[in-house]
Amino acid sequence: MEFHARPILPAGFRCASRNCGLKPVARDLSVFVSSVPAAAAGVFTRNRFPGAPIVVGRELLENGRLQAIVVNSKLSNVATGETGILNARRMGIAASAELGLRADDVLMSSTGVIGRQLAIEMIEEGLRGIGNELVDDPLVGAEGIMTTDTRPKAISASVGGATITWVGKGSGMIEPNMATMLAYIFTDARLDAAALDSALRSAVEDSFNMLSIDSDTSTSDTCVVLANGLAGEVDEGAFRRVLEAGCIRMAEMMARDGEGATKLLRAAVQGAADRDQARKAAKSIINSPLVKTMAFGADPNVGRVLMAVGKCFDVQQDPAMTAVWINDVAVFAECRKLDYDESVLRRELSGDPVEIRVDLGIGNGSATGFGCDLTHGYIDENAAYFSS
Amino acid sequence: MEFHARPILPAGFRCASRNCGLKPVARDLSVFVSSVPAAAAGVFTRNRFPGAPIVVGRELLENGRLQAIVVNSKLSNVATGETGILNARRMGIAASAELGLRADDVLMSSTGVIGRQLAIEMIEEGLRGIGNELVDDPLVGAEGIMTTDTRPKAISASVGGATITWVGKGSGMIEPNMATMLAYIFTDARLDAAALDSALRSAVEDSFNMLSIDSDTSTSDTCVVLANGLAGEVDEGAFRRVLEAGCIRMAEMMARDGEGATKLLRAAVQGAADRDQARKAAKSIINSPLVKTMAFGADPNVGRVLMAVGKCFDVQQDPAMTAVWINDVAVFAECRKLDYDESVLRRELSGDPVEIRVDLGIGNGSATGFGCDLTHGYIDENAAYFSS
Repeated sequence: MEFHARPILPAGFRCASRNCGLKPVARDLSVFVSSVPAAAAGVFTRNRFPGAPIVVGRELLENGRLQAIVVNSKLSNVATGETGILNARRMGIAASAELGLRADDVLMSSTGVIGRQLAIEMIEEGLRGIGNELVDDPLVGAEGIMTTDTRPKAISASVGGATITWVGKGSGMIEPNMATMLAYIFTDARLDAAALDSALRSAVEDSFNMLSIDSDTSTSDTCVVLANGLAGEVDEGAFRRVLEAGCIRMAEMMARDGEGATKLLRAAVQGAADRDQARKAAKSIINSPLVKTMAFGADPNVGRVLMAVGKCFDVQQDPAMTAVWINDVAVFAECRKLDYDESVLRRELSGDPVEIRVDLGIGNGSATGFGCDLTHGYIDENAAYFSS
Repeated sequence: MEFHARPILPAGFRCASRNCGLKPVARDLSVFVSSVPAAAAGVFTRNRFPGAPIVVGRELLENGRLQAIVVNSKLSNVATGETGILNARRMGIAASAELGLRADDVLMSSTGVIGRQLAIEMIEEGLRGIGNELVDDPLVGAEGIMTTDTRPKAISASVGGATITWVGKGSGMIEPNMATMLAYIFTDARLDAAALDSALRSAVEDSFNMLSIDSDTSTSDTCVVLANGLAGEVDEGAFRRVLEAGCIRMAEMMARDGEGATKLLRAAVQGAADRDQARKAAKSIINSPLVKTMAFGADPNVGRVLMAVGKCFDVQQDPAMTAVWINDVAVFAECRKLDYDESVLRRELSGDPVEIRVDLGIGNGSATGFGCDLTHGYIDENAAYFSS
């Protein structure tokens, strides 16, 4: 499958974004809207301190229908108590009034600093008239939801006569266990809410749930899909395949644009006893600070990869059966580091992506994890990120 | 209890260290020896890719007796296959010959780069005559086992008429699950191997096993205790208390001297459903890159602490019951960030240590985790640390 050279929104979907004053200049408020109500499904953060929009959003998704999403960046509306819940509802109501929709057809998201109340009046004021600015370029909506992202993220692809479009933000506090970031997926394909939910959960499992920027699980993560049916039915198998491929691509874009990241780090584990064990080992590799700094430093340090796999105490493994490749160069087998040309590998590792492959030689389980290198940029962004 | 102002070795124990050529100039080879055979107990890394000295060491500890320990730094003898096992045994045999001991009374350890064979001839040559240089200053032995540590680590304390002395190294690839570093404990108290083993396991549980520099579990971690009995029996309860206090102190020294670290990060969790859940939450806090960079940046970001606790999916918790303090200032309670003087807290956080306390308000489980901040120094050391 191919992604479109320039992303578009599916039939019936449009978006807009504005600066409403939460940030000094940059856009901080986006809406995405369908011309007709859409079947909807979503997955949210598993963090036990979810933000107010997550609490309200779970309720809203219960009837499997949405028509619009309103998102602000800069303030996350997390750790804000009852006032936070009220403000999340006010945000949805303001957007529904502006767009002429039912209030319970509008999902709200917030991303940014934790522990400060939403400046809800600024958001309400900012939504006024936004319905007159709707366009069909998803990058416009993507711009309003950025936090420390360095670029807006949107992609689209065709499936049959329909289109699927992914709009996302990532960057920090990202280790899913549900998609750990904001990702909105729009399609004009016709699917009911149950089929959509099943397809989304399956796609998220091998994409956003295998993504980790820094092993930290945000309190605001949201991945929602809206299907408005305007393009009619498509083959469900094809839809699921394209949906998953786009989620993987978006996860890779988020990883590569992780806070301070200079490259994508991909870890493929095969030969595990089962898929779950492969997932654990792959996650351990992409989360290891020593593997991540090795990717940054372009040093092919096989010991760090072995360490990261070996510290998965509940993953069945045996050094005698384990083989490791770094960017397709075999570096470990039969209990020992292999002889290889270090300078070739260093050159490989200077590039993007860095790919680590581990074969545990036990069974047929496999999984791929998506991460990034750990750099001075991450320290700079997060040591200087003030909470207020 | 008090630690001695200047550490000493217990009666009958002496040590020496030398440069044998593994490092350009610094000491890279140490021996610790008792004048009589000692009861011994040990715990080793749980990493599934253990180094050769771990494999051999587990065998040696089976008869609960040791008289000496020989340690080299610079090369870890990990991922070295059958040759590595052979070299570990040669290292023990060489030390036993030099010191006039039985070969199976000498434990060997190696720490440093993974995947290169020991330069065993240099070590054998380096051990020749080392028996004539034995001294009673534990810092001399501590110096030969350093890798990226910035200072040698040894402490001692009295229990009854006996002495306990801890010698350790730490710095990187440190997240226990057995003590993740090298720590050797010597005492002239008289205990049998079973009592010693029980006391060690208990002490390690709340000290080295609650230490994490970077969440990465080394393949070489070793914590061994030798009791030569020369000072006679002591109260076992007192011995256990002092042993644990010294292990905690040594864990804190290792955390504070973690790679690139500028300060100790201590996370105390109370009110958990049980001790295991408290341990998980405390570990999650000290391992969170966002909490660690916050400690470096001296920004009191309560959201990151809540995130780190909330991502422990299997820890029973409820935002409404949770309270958080940073350096004794209450920052979160009753579902919301509290009002506090940010400037006071920033000043507190500029110091050392940074202390985070979380009360989950559920039960009586408590635990304390020991970590450090995440800084540019960690990136520098690990992006530039070449594997060969």
